[in-house]
Amino acid sequence: MKKAKKKISAAILVIGNEILSGRTQDLNVSFISNWLNLKCGIKVEEVRIVPDIKKKIVKNVLDLSKKFNYVFTTGGIGPTHDDITAKSISKAFKVKYEYHKEAYKILEKYYGANKFNQGRKKMAKMPSGSSLILNPSSAAPGFKIKNVLCLPGVPSILKSMIENLKKFLIKGSVIFSKTINLYTVESNISFQMQKIQKKFSKNIEIGSYPFFRLGKIGVSVVLRSTSKKKLELCMKEIRNMVEVKKIKFFK
Amino acid sequence: MKKAKKKISAAILVIGNEILSGRTQDLNVSFISNWLNLKCGIKVEEVRIVPDIKKKIVKNVLDLSKKFNYVFTTGGIGPTHDDITAKSISKAFKVKYEYHKEAYKILEKYYGANKFNQGRKKMAKMPSGSSLILNPSSAAPGFKIKNVLCLPGVPSILKSMIENLKKFLIKGSVIFSKTINLYTVESNISFQMQKIQKKFSKNIEIGSYPFFRLGKIGVSVVLRSTSKKKLELCMKEIRNMVEVKKIKFFK
Repeated sequence: MKKAKKKISAAILVIGNEILSGRTQDLNVSFISNWLNLKCGIKVEEVRIVPDIKKKIVKNVLDLSKKFNYVFTTGGIGPTHDDITAKSISKAFKVKYEYHKEAYKILEKYYGANKFNQGRKKMAKMPSGSSLILNPSSAAPGFKIKNVLCLPGVPSILKSMIENLKKFLIKGSVIFSKTINLYTVESNISFQMQKIQKKFSKNIEIGSYPFFRLGKIGVSVVLRSTSKKKLELCMKEIRNMVEVKKIKFFK
Repeated sequence: MKKAKKKISAAILVIGNEILSGRTQDLNVSFISNWLNLKCGIKVEEVRIVPDIKKKIVKNVLDLSKKFNYVFTTGGIGPTHDDITAKSISKAFKVKYEYHKEAYKILEKYYGANKFNQGRKKMAKMPSGSSLILNPSSAAPGFKIKNVLCLPGVPSILKSMIENLKKFLIKGSVIFSKTINLYTVESNISFQMQKIQKKFSKNIEIGSYPFFRLGKIGVSVVLRSTSKKKLELCMKEIRNMVEVKKIKFFK
């Protein structure tokens, strides 16, 4: 990865009727977002899920690629009629949708010339000028064009490719995170938490999430910041608040 | 639910830093989408996930509420500082953000006057003119204003409230679905599937999804349509294709 810049933003565009209809549970958003966060200091600021409809993909790719440093798409790069991501992105960026020579060679070698049928050849078609994102598990590469990086929808394949994204990304400031789990309910701490959030509004993002575990109710307080120091200061205030209110920590 | 209309569309707006950061796996999208599909004939056509930032919520609520018949939001209606859905939607629709009398009564009764603190009172504040979506599991109601229906983020609470949405929704044509699982790979059927999809392009949406189960590779072909007849006709053609190609069904 290239040199660190301060704040790098990203969006994820999930392409697929099966996610929208509820048939398939998306697992890629949390995986990509965690990876970008921890490994690259890149923060996902918006996610959209759209159907396999060309004009919707075109519109959303253009919209998100203008707003964020990177756009990661998932889905729609397989061999079937409903895989239209590459074609749609070619249209979005007004470039040819054509065979990528290297991708063609990779796939021809993987399947063997005899079994390299029409559907498989389709997976070598990409927006002109794309760079390949290599796929160690099932050969068919993803691709990068401008600030848009296109990945497959199958989670296991996507996971196997994720490290191959690094060379295309500029690293941002790493975001540190601290969590404490409290044996309380949100409304018991909401007033104090608001005060603390206001105090640290410039540097820290505080989230509060109720949970139910083994029949007990608790709250996870999550602090996120690019500054470890501020994180410690803020955590101290929260610990004070917890002590004053005689709240127990959740184990 | 009111009388059936032909096609009813919806969007889901997930509000929450914890989903964007990957800390929490969203489970609500697939649940809501399946429920709308099966019980209401309403099709989710877009999903967005946005952070707990007022101007982003305002923009996306307005945008989606113009484009779709209904918008369902999840998250951000609890008692803490990062719960800003109700306030943001008030701003979006330029109405007051104020105590909803009935919600106030429900919450006061639930907690008891002594324990009805500031955080809990906040959950009774809503956009002026909202209707309540009752919450049988933890009292704090969701609300509906215009075509926007606001639900909590905790999946178990959301699930307990879902039937209470029905009175606000107009039912669309039910979408029927058929799935066959084939013992093949996508690229083996992609050419024929494209031809079949073209033939039924007006009435049927065909999806093709590879899967890996017990070490075997297969493809799920999913047909979706509001017409049972067309669904049967299309399924017949797919069965013929499967027979000609000597593909086995996956058990």
